Amino acid sequence: MTVTATPTTDSQPGYKWVGTRPVRHDGLDKVTGRAKYGADLNLPGMLIGAVLRSPHAHARILSIDTSAAEAMEGVRAVVTGADFPMLESGGEGSGEEYYDPLDLCRNVMARDKVLYEGHALAAVAATSRREALAALAAIKVDYEVLPHVLDVSEAMSPDAPILHEDLITEGVDPVPSEPSNVASRYVIDRGDIEKGFAEADVIVEREFVTQPVHQGYIEPHAVVADVGEDGKATVFCSSQGHFMVRAHTAELLGWEPSRVKVIPAEIGGGFGGKTTVYIEPVATRLSQKAGRPVKIVMTRDEVFRATGPTSGCKIRLKVGATRDGRLTAVSGSMAYQAGAFKGSPVSLGCMCAFAPYAIENVFLEGFDVVVNMPKVTAYRAPGAPMASFASETVLDEIAEQLGIDPLEFRLRNAAEEGMRSVYGPIHKRIGFRETVEAVRDHPQYSIELGPNQGRGVASGFWFNFGGSSSATVHINEDGTASVLTGSPDIGGSRASMALMAAEELGIDVYDISPIVSDTESVGYTDVTGGSRVTHATGLAVIDACRKVVADLRARAAKVWDVAVDEVEWVDGRAQHVSGDRAPMTTRDLAADAAGTGGPITASAAVNARGAGAAFSTQVCDVEVDPETGAVKILRYMTAQDAGRAIHPSYVEGQMQGGVAQGIGWALNEEYIFDGDGTMENPGFLDYRMPVASDLPMIDTVIVEVPNPGHPYGVRGVGEVGIVPPMAAVANAIHDATGLRLSELPMSPVKVLEAIGANGG
Amino acid sequence: MTVTATPTTDSQPGYKWVGTRPVRHDGLDKVTGRAKYGADLNLPGMLIGAVLRSPHAHARILSIDTSAAEAMEGVRAVVTGADFPMLESGGEGSGEEYYDPLDLCRNVMARDKVLYEGHALAAVAATSRREALAALAAIKVDYEVLPHVLDVSEAMSPDAPILHEDLITEGVDPVPSEPSNVASRYVIDRGDIEKGFAEADVIVEREFVTQPVHQGYIEPHAVVADVGEDGKATVFCSSQGHFMVRAHTAELLGWEPSRVKVIPAEIGGGFGGKTTVYIEPVATRLSQKAGRPVKIVMTRDEVFRATGPTSGCKIRLKVGATRDGRLTAVSGSMAYQAGAFKGSPVSLGCMCAFAPYAIENVFLEGFDVVVNMPKVTAYRAPGAPMASFASETVLDEIAEQLGIDPLEFRLRNAAEEGMRSVYGPIHKRIGFRETVEAVRDHPQYSIELGPNQGRGVASGFWFNFGGSSSATVHINEDGTASVLTGSPDIGGSRASMALMAAEELGIDVYDISPIVSDTESVGYTDVTGGSRVTHATGLAVIDACRKVVADLRARAAKVWDVAVDEVEWVDGRAQHVSGDRAPMTTRDLAADAAGTGGPITASAAVNARGAGAAFSTQVCDVEVDPETGAVKILRYMTAQDAGRAIHPSYVEGQMQGGVAQGIGWALNEEYIFDGDGTMENPGFLDYRMPVASDLPMIDTVIVEVPNPGHPYGVRGVGEVGIVPPMAAVANAIHDATGLRLSELPMSPVKVLEAIGANGG
Repeated sequence: MTVTATPTTDSQPGYKWVGTRPVRHDGLDKVTGRAKYGADLNLPGMLIGAVLRSPHAHARILSIDTSAAEAMEGVRAVVTGADFPMLESGGEGSGEEYYDPLDLCRNVMARDKVLYEGHALAAVAATSRREALAALAAIKVDYEVLPHVLDVSEAMSPDAPILHEDLITEGVDPVPSEPSNVASRYVIDRGDIEKGFAEADVIVEREFVTQPVHQGYIEPHAVVADVGEDGKATVFCSSQGHFMVRAHTAELLGWEPSRVKVIPAEIGGGFGGKTTVYIEPVATRLSQKAGRPVKIVMTRDEVFRATGPTSGCKIRLKVGATRDGRLTAVSGSMAYQAGAFKGSPVSLGCMCAFAPYAIENVFLEGFDVVVNMPKVTAYRAPGAPMASFASETVLDEIAEQLGIDPLEFRLRNAAEEGMRSVYGPIHKRIGFRETVEAVRDHPQYSIELGPNQGRGVASGFWFNFGGSSSATVHINEDGTASVLTGSPDIGGSRASMALMAAEELGIDVYDISPIVSDTESVGYTDVTGGSRVTHATGLAVIDACRKVVADLRARAAKVWDVAVDEVEWVDGRAQHVSGDRAPMTTRDLAADAAGTGGPITASAAVNARGAGAAFSTQVCDVEVDPETGAVKILRYMTAQDAGRAIHPSYVEGQMQGGVAQGIGWALNEEYIFDGDGTMENPGFLDYRMPVASDLPMIDTVIVEVPNPGHPYGVRGVGEVGIVPPMAAVANAIHDATGLRLSELPMSPVKVLEAIGANGG
Repeated sequence: MTVTATPTTDSQPGYKWVGTRPVRHDGLDKVTGRAKYGADLNLPGMLIGAVLRSPHAHARILSIDTSAAEAMEGVRAVVTGADFPMLESGGEGSGEEYYDPLDLCRNVMARDKVLYEGHALAAVAATSRREALAALAAIKVDYEVLPHVLDVSEAMSPDAPILHEDLITEGVDPVPSEPSNVASRYVIDRGDIEKGFAEADVIVEREFVTQPVHQGYIEPHAVVADVGEDGKATVFCSSQGHFMVRAHTAELLGWEPSRVKVIPAEIGGGFGGKTTVYIEPVATRLSQKAGRPVKIVMTRDEVFRATGPTSGCKIRLKVGATRDGRLTAVSGSMAYQAGAFKGSPVSLGCMCAFAPYAIENVFLEGFDVVVNMPKVTAYRAPGAPMASFASETVLDEIAEQLGIDPLEFRLRNAAEEGMRSVYGPIHKRIGFRETVEAVRDHPQYSIELGPNQGRGVASGFWFNFGGSSSATVHINEDGTASVLTGSPDIGGSRASMALMAAEELGIDVYDISPIVSDTESVGYTDVTGGSRVTHATGLAVIDACRKVVADLRARAAKVWDVAVDEVEWVDGRAQHVSGDRAPMTTRDLAADAAGTGGPITASAAVNARGAGAAFSTQVCDVEVDPETGAVKILRYMTAQDAGRAIHPSYVEGQMQGGVAQGIGWALNEEYIFDGDGTMENPGFLDYRMPVASDLPMIDTVIVEVPNPGHPYGVRGVGEVGIVPPMAAVANAIHDATGLRLSELPMSPVKVLEAIGANGG
């Protein structure tokens, strides 16, 4: 179902291709197994690489002796931290692309200390996996095991084991004299918080705890690296950004980026977790040393122990509102696990938690806390879901206390165009209100509930990003087009690029070949992340297509011997203003390209501004089994502002995917560590992600409030869907049981405990 | 040695990169064996294809029974002519790209008749080569063997066996009523030939015969085709033009070109012989039928029997001159073997033979004659070498009769800027005279000769072509650049593209990655042939680089907050006209690309006009062994107008390569057929190409008379070098022995016969 709001643009054109649902161009290759994922490449003479990982959550490396491994049959190269340059600290980028080079190089290959169980500290390349594993076993490492810390509160306490002796908290005044595990403090401080709470008729204050969860992509990290005698590397891997892999791999080897060519494999899911490198620089160095191609494929165990996850956190919130349901003040603090190196998404959590609402008085502080687990990586709307779990649960409680319908409560406080957002900028045209209304008007919101059943609603916000993207468009002799971009296609972006190109060029969408090109064949492009691709890479595609159309018009003018401005481009044809000449299609003009100046081709690049904010409002119906504590999702509906749905099926897929992951996070997923800091559930049997039988069909309503910053009104759609589910589920459980759960996951044991604590 | 003539452009800039000799970018990969040629790709599940070829030179196919082959172990697909659509006749393209679709489809897979020994008529794909060959042996073909004809004179006689019952000679009036083997008659008729001969004081009339010779590339044709479940094909092969392979493969399968993606392999020589398809459509259809990738690699035997060669011919010339050495008239006829289908380069032979000279009265007629041997394919300056063998031998005889030094004789008749050429257009600035002077002034021309030694000179002309080319340039974050073109690199064109890009962008040539991209990743580009690449593809590269520089200037203006026209691009840096700001390099501007508008990228395409004609003059010293008839090349020097040598080493390499092939053609190479029309020497042991020990170091003098149609003055350099050698060698043999040989090859047996006929 699609609800289209009055567009802000002057007219809403009748699109021919945008908004249709063609079968994806890459579909047949995927269902027939022809598509090549990271592990699918094999090269002649290829070696198999394997990585030695720390068994300890925190330890000093006293020595590493690789001599026995190096002497073993079949072993062709061994590397340790000593084979990689130590980089200088210094943040670059922002959002999902933030990283510190020093931290990244120490994460990829530990130096003096291992900081989490699974931390890489050596690697080998051998002629078989068996030999590689035997060589790993022959590497002798002397450790001095140190006390470790995982819990974010414990890590912040003065007597906690310190991960980094040089880590001085940023963002506090005065600058601390002692190192701690608090990497930084982030603050939003607007209005007058005292005054705000003084105006409140009702105040709710609550504390929340969430656990780290993994992105859970199906495809483990995999790479084949091949370094030539000319010192140049070709790297084939699955990632969310091959230009990112190129830049990081080169940097970690002390090379210039152009020394590395990265060929993108198909990607079997990323969700933010493939926006950094782990094994790519290692395989490349091994290949360089061995003089042969090297493949490394992570096991699922390695994926859990050494990649992802996102932060577990502790959040305390205090929210005030007037009797008539107006929010007057919000204060709170959030502490997020960063993992072994600084850089949790806590600042994004602070910014997103209350972003759907107009609130004048806000004080939120966030703490980025290092602990002895893998460095956290971006995960779909990084930082927002756990923050919104807290904020949207508290809002539900306030609405309940005030006796106001929770959707009505949200409408009374909805942020609108022209208002200042909680996180700073003035809102442009946004569609939050429309998502609330879509839920209110949806049949599910009126279905009667049975015993032990409950209904919960929640909303969520995500910024959506812009960033750098490039595109090249070539017109073939038969009038079809190749559309090259540098954005790995995770959620169907080849289809959306093809649709926009078809719309611009006026040719059939199946006459477009949308191609994800390697780092040499298309201009620089940022990662597929931040829900940026259809917006930003789409802008580059549209720009390149418009250059092509300008060229086509010029060629038609040449053929007709008229001025270019007498040639119009209408519905994929050049036509003369007089109307007295037979229009020429792209195909006509392509057939005669040599005669009118040569092949038809154009490139374009953008650093896209004007990404439009995304909002989602969701309603969840649950039934709680009072005997087992199991929560069954009966019905689920999500309404989201897509701005413009280029390919509605993939928009719906993104909406459903976000909800599915959010439900897993809400009910079951968590990292479980033993007393030594060893992960106890590093596999899909024990780390419980939802499967098809756990979920109902998730209803979707696409709301279209066009983003004024994009020619078709596109907003990003990939991330915001994961923001509301934990609160929606928690609010539904409360509706069913009267219990307010404040810890994730709300697994049967926790629900049973809460029921028990409440007297059964 | 390079001789630079006064340029016609206003100023000759001091280049930084153009004219230097960096090690080629693809060099290390080639010397280490890392470069991937056509046969080097292997895919999982790949089948091996093999082609059934006719044992008869001319036969009707009564039936083909493939049932036994299809039933054999390991056989996955069998195809015959019935698996390919019959296309309609109709010429397209010109020069090296001329083809008739009907002829091409019948050449790739015979239908009702086989027209030469080696003609393909069926193919199989099996799980091994052994099985594929066994299956070929199991295909039952009933032939009605027909009389065949090879000799061009015999083929033109009224009672010759007719190859094509529907072949009516084109270009004669009235149109013949009967079919013949003469496909067309081409005429150059200018001035008054009677008057011209009347003015002559001396007239020489001679007849010449040459044999078909093969291009002799080291790498046999090889292809891997893979057709997906979506019906789209990926084809990996060695060729002179992957867009040509795409177009032809698609056409022969009845597909649109965009259904096929062709990935260019490295190419181990082509010399014109890889400007068409043989096995590519066959492998593709086999893959489509089998549902698996199919590889076909020709044996050397197949290469000789079923690809190449160029025409053997008969030429009769009559040339008149005045006593003071002025050419007054030329008349003659040329008959070229076309092979089994029409399309010899006889018209090019007519145009080129006397093109270095100013002659008012010319009558030349050319006959394109089909015979029962493989369809001829372009070979380096197609049609010109055999014609110039004739013309330059006759000119030598006239000069001798007049007692004028042969170089002086050429200077007296040299074509110059502003004169009408023998083949039609008015000459632009050309460097023929300068090449003659370069030979005259070279030390070799004055070295004293010993007994049985002789010296010969000859000149040659080649048009050089333009055509369609595309290029894309991406600036990497580190300020380096990727330069993508669609031109397979045969003679070092990646180096010349990198040099021109380095010159334009002002960055180090090793900071350019010149890439030959596949048919999806770069705009349409014509074949590498006609000596067009450095000129035409170079123009596209230069244009794309200039777009990049315009963008860089605009970004510098943005950084400095000044108007773009205040920013100059000098020596690879943006500098402000005032001189009061620190200049910014490409690297500086690339590092901040995101901040100034996004990635830096540009595409360009041209249908290049303005290709500059090439001339070469060569001198050859030989010693003839009167006992054996063996001709030893003592010294050889070639002077050629390159316009501008972008990479002089590769220009010299092209000059030397042309001469080496010309010497082989002059002395040893020929197709030898038995009485049944079966080739008797289909291997490098019996088909005698020159090896290193057969040749002296070939001295080169690059003459640089800039082509006004190219920003750097580039002319093509790849082909003209092969035009003079046969005459130069013949003239030297005459100088040594007093004998005028008129048949190629001038092998020991022919030389001995001539010595014997002359009385020993």
